Amino acid sequence: MRHAKEYAEGRAKAEPVPPAEYASIQRFYARQMRLLDEGEGDAWADTFTEDGTFDQSSFAEPVRGRAAIAAAVRGRPAAPAGTVRRHWLGLPAAWRFPDGSVRTGYDALVVSTAEGAAPEIRLSTSCQDVLVADEDGTGDGTGTGDGWLVRSRYVGHDGQ
Amino acid sequence: MRHAKEYAEGRAKAEPVPPAEYASIQRFYARQMRLLDEGEGDAWADTFTEDGTFDQSSFAEPVRGRAAIAAAVRGRPAAPAGTVRRHWLGLPAAWRFPDGSVRTGYDALVVSTAEGAAPEIRLSTSCQDVLVADEDGTGDGTGTGDGWLVRSRYVGHDGQ
Amino acid sequence: MRHAKEYAEGRAKAEPVPPAEYASIQRFYARQMRLLDEGEGDAWADTFTEDGTFDQSSFAEPVRGRAAIAAAVRGRPAAPAGTVRRHWLGLPAAWRFPDGSVRTGYDALVVSTAEGAAPEIRLSTSCQDVLVADEDGTGDGTGTGDGWLVRSRYVGHDGQ
Repeated sequence: MRHAKEYAEGRAKAEPVPPAEYASIQRFYARQMRLLDEGEGDAWADTFTEDGTFDQSSFAEPVRGRAAIAAAVRGRPAAPAGTVRRHWLGLPAAWRFPDGSVRTGYDALVVSTAEGAAPEIRLSTSCQDVLVADEDGTGDGTGTGDGWLVRSRYVGHDGQ
Repeated sequence: MRHAKEYAEGRAKAEPVPPAEYASIQRFYARQMRLLDEGEGDAWADTFTEDGTFDQSSFAEPVRGRAAIAAAVRGRPAAPAGTVRRHWLGLPAAWRFPDGSVRTGYDALVVSTAEGAAPEIRLSTSCQDVLVADEDGTGDGTGTGDGWLVRSRYVGHDGQ
Repeated sequence: MRHAKEYAEGRAKAEPVPPAEYASIQRFYARQMRLLDEGEGDAWADTFTEDGTFDQSSFAEPVRGRAAIAAAVRGRPAAPAGTVRRHWLGLPAAWRFPDGSVRTGYDALVVSTAEGAAPEIRLSTSCQDVLVADEDGTGDGTGTGDGWLVRSRYVGHDGQ
């Protein structure tokens, strides 16, 4: 997995974040994921930093910058009509790294339900984010007001 | 989806709840869901306000009042003998609305395991609650003592 | 279920833990589970107390002591090559019991993804832990530094 070595090395020296910060990180993720599932792709992209990166194990290279991330989410293949897809996040682990950044690790699933059918898990992933404080947080399009922005995200797809 | 317009309009002006309040909301949900899965239907109904409402996309109209909610949960079709059903809650998003109420949005799954079989997801839902502070919280049957009561719940079933 | 009676009796007199403690408990679980899924079995075993116990409904008797727990996790059957298994934890409920211990109840799933295949849920469980404060928390191998250690864990498998 890309990033794995740097991540493991840094984590060995990292401190868990304090409880209130941990709660605020969960709150950020809960809100961020709902934006995606509710079709608010632009607002979702606004939860990345202006120069944020989004990478997946299935990408040839990372998507760089908030505008490109917004375009990528708009360009995703649509679910078939009547099918609902939801992103499920596991409890995130969160550390403050020696360089001052906050890094998280969490699992995520995509659960898909077609009309009249039972839900199924389409995708299982393991994710790593670098978060930075959202100094603004005014809800003016530069963040969710939840106190965090994603500087980089890596999503590793299981089974590939 | 019923409620969707009022919800979206209010949310645009809402503030995320503070981290400690967010943690207390998660704590409430964790305990509330276990009551349901452990067969404590009356105690589960007690986590709604006396005049609380419970609505689902499959209902013709909401169930109104704690006593009616307790009766509805008692009246649910039982799982087949040997089958265990568990409610899974995703990380809740939570806002304080301009009217002072706390509103949450979260996804929920029902995972069902029959004797000797692999678990399967029976149902995928997206839920919206209005919560109010549980001033009492003494565990005398008017709440879980977790600081919150549900004033209204809407459960939207995917795939219908 | 073993433990169920003692657990239910104690819980009736128990208090929910305060919000910051609740957040720290979630933080502990998030980190503990990732250790297991990342193959850090020894570090995972170090999140139990020296005399900790690990019990499952499929065990004839509990595994006793950190060294035996580490050996048990090393001895688990490996997943087939190319298959990724992940532990998913639901929101934990957490109480401080009259004896001063913290006890938690939570559901857990094992999600398995074989190469080229869709993810599937292999196992659904309901778990009960007794946690104690990790006074050390220095990351010197006697804990995760997250403030908690498991004194006893019981994992009940659904469908058996």
